[in-house]
Amino acid sequence: MSSSSFDQQLDALRSQIDEADSELVKLLQKRSSITKQIGQLKSQHALPIYVPEREKALIEARRSEAEAAGVSGDLIEDILRRMMRDSYHSQHAKYACINPQINKVVVVGGAGALGKVFVNLFSQSAYSVSVLEKEDWEHAHLHLKDADLVIIAVPINITCDIIAALPLLKPDCILADVTSIKNAPLQAMLEVHKGPVVGLHPMFGPDAPGMIKQVVVVCQGRGEAQYKWLLEQMQLWGASLYHTNAETHDHAMAYIQVMRHFSTFVYGRHLQQENPQLQELIAFSSPIYRLELAMVGRLFAQAPELYADIIFSNQDSVALLKRFSSRFAQAIELLEKGDKSAFMEQFNQAAEWFGDYAQLCLNDSKKMLLKADDSHLLRQLD
Amino acid sequence: MSSSSFDQQLDALRSQIDEADSELVKLLQKRSSITKQIGQLKSQHALPIYVPEREKALIEARRSEAEAAGVSGDLIEDILRRMMRDSYHSQHAKYACINPQINKVVVVGGAGALGKVFVNLFSQSAYSVSVLEKEDWEHAHLHLKDADLVIIAVPINITCDIIAALPLLKPDCILADVTSIKNAPLQAMLEVHKGPVVGLHPMFGPDAPGMIKQVVVVCQGRGEAQYKWLLEQMQLWGASLYHTNAETHDHAMAYIQVMRHFSTFVYGRHLQQENPQLQELIAFSSPIYRLELAMVGRLFAQAPELYADIIFSNQDSVALLKRFSSRFAQAIELLEKGDKSAFMEQFNQAAEWFGDYAQLCLNDSKKMLLKADDSHLLRQLD
Repeated sequence: MSSSSFDQQLDALRSQIDEADSELVKLLQKRSSITKQIGQLKSQHALPIYVPEREKALIEARRSEAEAAGVSGDLIEDILRRMMRDSYHSQHAKYACINPQINKVVVVGGAGALGKVFVNLFSQSAYSVSVLEKEDWEHAHLHLKDADLVIIAVPINITCDIIAALPLLKPDCILADVTSIKNAPLQAMLEVHKGPVVGLHPMFGPDAPGMIKQVVVVCQGRGEAQYKWLLEQMQLWGASLYHTNAETHDHAMAYIQVMRHFSTFVYGRHLQQENPQLQELIAFSSPIYRLELAMVGRLFAQAPELYADIIFSNQDSVALLKRFSSRFAQAIELLEKGDKSAFMEQFNQAAEWFGDYAQLCLNDSKKMLLKADDSHLLRQLD
Repeated sequence: MSSSSFDQQLDALRSQIDEADSELVKLLQKRSSITKQIGQLKSQHALPIYVPEREKALIEARRSEAEAAGVSGDLIEDILRRMMRDSYHSQHAKYACINPQINKVVVVGGAGALGKVFVNLFSQSAYSVSVLEKEDWEHAHLHLKDADLVIIAVPINITCDIIAALPLLKPDCILADVTSIKNAPLQAMLEVHKGPVVGLHPMFGPDAPGMIKQVVVVCQGRGEAQYKWLLEQMQLWGASLYHTNAETHDHAMAYIQVMRHFSTFVYGRHLQQENPQLQELIAFSSPIYRLELAMVGRLFAQAPELYADIIFSNQDSVALLKRFSSRFAQAIELLEKGDKSAFMEQFNQAAEWFGDYAQLCLNDSKKMLLKADDSHLLRQLD
């Protein structure tokens, strides 16, 4: 084949790809107009946008169809899930309002990142919602005196002070907070307010587009019957609720938040002081190491106050970190002695402790890296 | 609207979604048959499958088209990239052969995970490739005496011994290894063989489907002109090459592999000894913490030997880990003293060291989590 006829053939095939991809754009447009109609219909009938059974059935049906046509089942599933993410978040311009008798919702700290998520969701459900920020704090009593629901969404280090300084609320007003520690704020709320109280910890960052498929931890305070509608409203927004008590929650947080942030902080500090060529480290990293490095790097693009507050406010921190530190030193001893077999024995013990979860983590992380790779995430700095 | 008319409306809209999704399956089938033709055409002309400029232009064109049609540009881009991943890996049943004069390639350890990747790629390029495994080691000289290229792909802890025990190779045979340390194997290869020698470190795990878009580190040994075709062949398979020297490479690896594996090992061991309820930790974790936990858990689904070898074989390990350990202890002191401002100052210094990379990590990890969420990755154990 001559080179020019090769070029012609390649160009012709590429034009066919372009045509197919343009058809895809049209198909996405059509699908989106249908899901918007579904969203409207559902919001009129107070039905949740996310219906796990429907999602599962839809995916199963298209997987079989794809495989029968020689198309990868994983490919169609990944594309469908990506389209669904888009439709979940464009479908719900409106959500149904579970409790139309609520006349006034106030989000204290509602201009902050997490506060905004709540403000938007309440607005989308046609609640009358307002924001109280520090500039207006001197008029707090005017904003709060007739509120039916007050949500505290201020930084963790001032949460308890803000709660203690609340003006008198209506006896049937619901008082809730959304801080990542639960015991102290819950106690503070129960003390300052005699009506219904509930502690919430939304298990997602402010980047999460809404509450669909997200977990919200619920710690009962008082008057559950009165705030039941609020839990139902969050479920309608797509949240899964996880009920527990505040002590259990905070104890787990020491392992999750404090340990990880502190270790990551030290690791970043260590790199800075060792001062290797960052550019070279990245170049020499396989995708999984780039992911590990990214998990360190991401900390340092965020506000130090937030992390300082989380680490310094948890009572269990110091003792827990000291135990970690002495285990680290013990492991170095193994290495110095060249005791590979003890290392492997301890490795196996930890593997046993993780059980099936370890394999699940391995599988999930592999799939994540493939997805990251599709989108050129975790690549080198250009 | 009556409830039954609502059900009818919802069913009708859902049928429309199903129809649109079936159209999508057909579109994927059509696209795949076109990309297969492109793959064949390219392999006949020894052209690379992955052409960054074409990919970029294609995505830009469809993004504009989508946005003009009210469809999210990110949505179409994500779907196109996912389709391209699929087509890269189904397109290349065959790759062109850069050097048809090579009569025999032998991969020592070619039955192992990484070895297999090379065996497959050489086969797909029509090289005659064979595998030498430990069962056949006693006949090594028969397998290797007429080889034109020998690739050592055995576990890291036996790499140098295997190299030292190699039988005499043809003077023009190329000897290469693919171990994750480079200095010792390269020295061993230069000693045992007087012909062309090159050290390679493929920066991807054995799960990577082929070499497309992956980085391979190249450490020159001797006779570059003679192994140049091998580098070109890897580029045709889609690899990006990164040239460096073995010492620089190994030094960086101490930071990347040893530090991360060792810390992760200690963290897993720490959790095992603290023995919190794993199920509860997972339930209480937001997506980003689940990702952090998954990066720990995944280690323990893998072979302890591999990690023991990596950690125990790097000479820089002990001193580096001791410096980390003492920095960890210093940070605990800050916490005990309640010195939040020193913590924040050090945080800011590390942030400065990471520079723009921190923000990039934050952005990438956010996007990754959205993708993980689409596919229900990193969710709780059911």
